[in-house]
Amino acid sequence: MEAGQALRADAARNRARIIAAAAQVFAERGLDASTAEVAERAGVGEATVFRRFPTKEDLIAAIVATKLEEAVETAAECAAEPDPWRGIERFMYEMTERTIGDRAVSEAARDRCMASAELAPLRRRLIELCCEMVKRAQRAGVLRADVSGPDLAFLIAAVGSLDPLPFPGLRGDLWRRYLGVVLDGLRPEGATKLRPGAPARRLIELPEG
Amino acid sequence: MEAGQALRADAARNRARIIAAAAQVFAERGLDASTAEVAERAGVGEATVFRRFPTKEDLIAAIVATKLEEAVETAAECAAEPDPWRGIERFMYEMTERTIGDRAVSEAARDRCMASAELAPLRRRLIELCCEMVKRAQRAGVLRADVSGPDLAFLIAAVGSLDPLPFPGLRGDLWRRYLGVVLDGLRPEGATKLRPGAPARRLIELPEG
Repeated sequence: MEAGQALRADAARNRARIIAAAAQVFAERGLDASTAEVAERAGVGEATVFRRFPTKEDLIAAIVATKLEEAVETAAECAAEPDPWRGIERFMYEMTERTIGDRAVSEAARDRCMASAELAPLRRRLIELCCEMVKRAQRAGVLRADVSGPDLAFLIAAVGSLDPLPFPGLRGDLWRRYLGVVLDGLRPEGATKLRPGAPARRLIELPEG
Repeated sequence: MEAGQALRADAARNRARIIAAAAQVFAERGLDASTAEVAERAGVGEATVFRRFPTKEDLIAAIVATKLEEAVETAAECAAEPDPWRGIERFMYEMTERTIGDRAVSEAARDRCMASAELAPLRRRLIELCCEMVKRAQRAGVLRADVSGPDLAFLIAAVGSLDPLPFPGLRGDLWRRYLGVVLDGLRPEGATKLRPGAPARRLIELPEG
């Protein structure tokens, strides 16, 4: 490896470390946490953080992009699960757990993710993978016929909102119980007609078909 | 009716009008809305609002108490529905719609409701009624056997969180679609084992049995 390459690899690692540290700090202490805290967690100087991310907005945008990339990776893995139902189940659990885990970032992500033109290709890819997962499970007869990819995202958002729970001291994994109810509701066995009949396809750039 | 009685009835009506107006204004514009706006909506002078509710906290507490009373009334009606499943369904739809309708107040309500010792009897009554509804539906074989009253509240909170939707322009009643999935998940037909097995009973003052 040449010196230039090594430097670039080093810079990329540093950047990833800052993003991961910031995601943790924001999740624990909200978006008001300081750059000093982020730098400390990442084990770099504050100046390094500012050089790479001049404003907190830049840092948040980078976290959102990273989380969206991770979501696409997870969706791709789940869409390739040998058992199609297991794929749906795994996707729902993993994504809900992440949503619960970093509420502050998730809310920022939700707003920014939808607004950013730059993230449109990743967003589209994520929805495509969700649709793929859904159709595959429907073909196998293990998922109700009247849901589509974006429904998974809304249901994850719903269950992922159950934190903090309104009763202090309740066990933190209670959301799993409610995701269990949702997953049973997604099975074909007890499916009754849903109203409204479908999420609005155009508005969320849903691929046709 | 004596003059004193008429005056008291008049005062009670005024009070109820201010609470209803404040609930509307806060729902539309958030808890930061001014007392002047509340007074205008209620058609009373600002001084009247301040005389009855010296601080905004007093006003919010009164709204929360009123909403909890309304919830208890709804629960009692639903628990008395001739068709036990219809009772569950109606309770879930009506409560979720209210949660969606006034998000700002709902969040304040959730915090205050749980913390207030004064509201404990109403809270307990609401949970009792939920448990009654659930047991009745289970005895009729129309509700999965492994859920309890508080589960209804958590599921309402989850679906009720879907506003504002992350995609601008989506139809506002999309939550009904997801409540439909949840309700299908509550039916006995496709029920699989839920983990964790139960919400924490003690912490939410759940009646025994």
